[in-house]
Amino acid sequence: MRTAAGETALGLLLTRYSVSAKHLTEPGPSDDDIWTMALAALRAPDRSKLVPFRFAVARGEGLQRLAALFEGYARRKGKPAEEVQRDRERATQAPVAIAVIARIDPANPEVPAHEQWACVGGAISNALTALHFMGYAAKVVSGARAADPAIEGAYCGENEQLVGWIVAGTPKGPVKPRGEFDPAAILKQF
Amino acid sequence: MRTAAGETALGLLLTRYSVSAKHLTEPGPSDDDIWTMALAALRAPDRSKLVPFRFAVARGEGLQRLAALFEGYARRKGKPAEEVQRDRERATQAPVAIAVIARIDPANPEVPAHEQWACVGGAISNALTALHFMGYAAKVVSGARAADPAIEGAYCGENEQLVGWIVAGTPKGPVKPRGEFDPAAILKQF
Repeated sequence: MRTAAGETALGLLLTRYSVSAKHLTEPGPSDDDIWTMALAALRAPDRSKLVPFRFAVARGEGLQRLAALFEGYARRKGKPAEEVQRDRERATQAPVAIAVIARIDPANPEVPAHEQWACVGGAISNALTALHFMGYAAKVVSGARAADPAIEGAYCGENEQLVGWIVAGTPKGPVKPRGEFDPAAILKQF
Repeated sequence: MRTAAGETALGLLLTRYSVSAKHLTEPGPSDDDIWTMALAALRAPDRSKLVPFRFAVARGEGLQRLAALFEGYARRKGKPAEEVQRDRERATQAPVAIAVIARIDPANPEVPAHEQWACVGGAISNALTALHFMGYAAKVVSGARAADPAIEGAYCGENEQLVGWIVAGTPKGPVKPRGEFDPAAILKQF
């Protein structure tokens, strides 16, 4: 049954757009907000309740440690000093950087690895949705840095993998809707 | 900034629980509702906009075709007649069964396969959330049937993989909250 509350929620869900760190500013989500974000992540479908993910929250000094890791990465890649500095600053642009760490058990007899990854993705998407509902904007940042052994090693224990970071804060200006993909292209009758 | 609309949406997001097909009845989501569900799925984070998923919607005759597939599977597994019948009925319990088909490109130079799977999972979770916001209940059904070559072959083309089905409908009774996992176990500071 359609309800006014449901329609309100649906309207917000359909207008969540990712916002890059450079367009984010203080305030970022508080520890209480991030707790709520984690509750939402835990509502993603998760067969056998494996909870194949966890979060590591950096703000303040944590962001400085992340900046040092990004700087080290840029140096090892032989980037010029100017780019090293830019990479360093990239880590501290958003008020909060929440690392997403996957804990996939490829030997699980019940739940294949691809379903565990789908659960990680559901958790990330629910986390972004919850942050949006709390008035923040956010984006998932991944790529080569997340796969760098030194950076991954700073976050992960055995059998863990760094997926990337949810960078979050308050958008500096109006959030731009992105061109939509046509649902007709992904919907058919069986 | 916290808003009344955001708090309403957050309250609904945190109270989405999966409901099994046997507890679902008519009405199921209409074609318009499923269109909205697909829009929500397309709002999951998706680096490089690969859209590595699509949906195939079964109701009515489609569910009968699915029942025949489940029956064939049970027979091939050598199940006794009674179980074959039960498996057949399992396909038609919910008003709608929306197959989720993944289209993962493991050779994509930008986005590794695990991130594409995370996008599929984000799409699924957003789809469930949207159905919940529209007043329906749903659950992801996967397991051995989704991996069966005959069933997968009925849904998938080349380089596609059947993830499972989102079964959806109206809950027959009040939806039971599930025991929560403690966010403290998945949250730490970096």
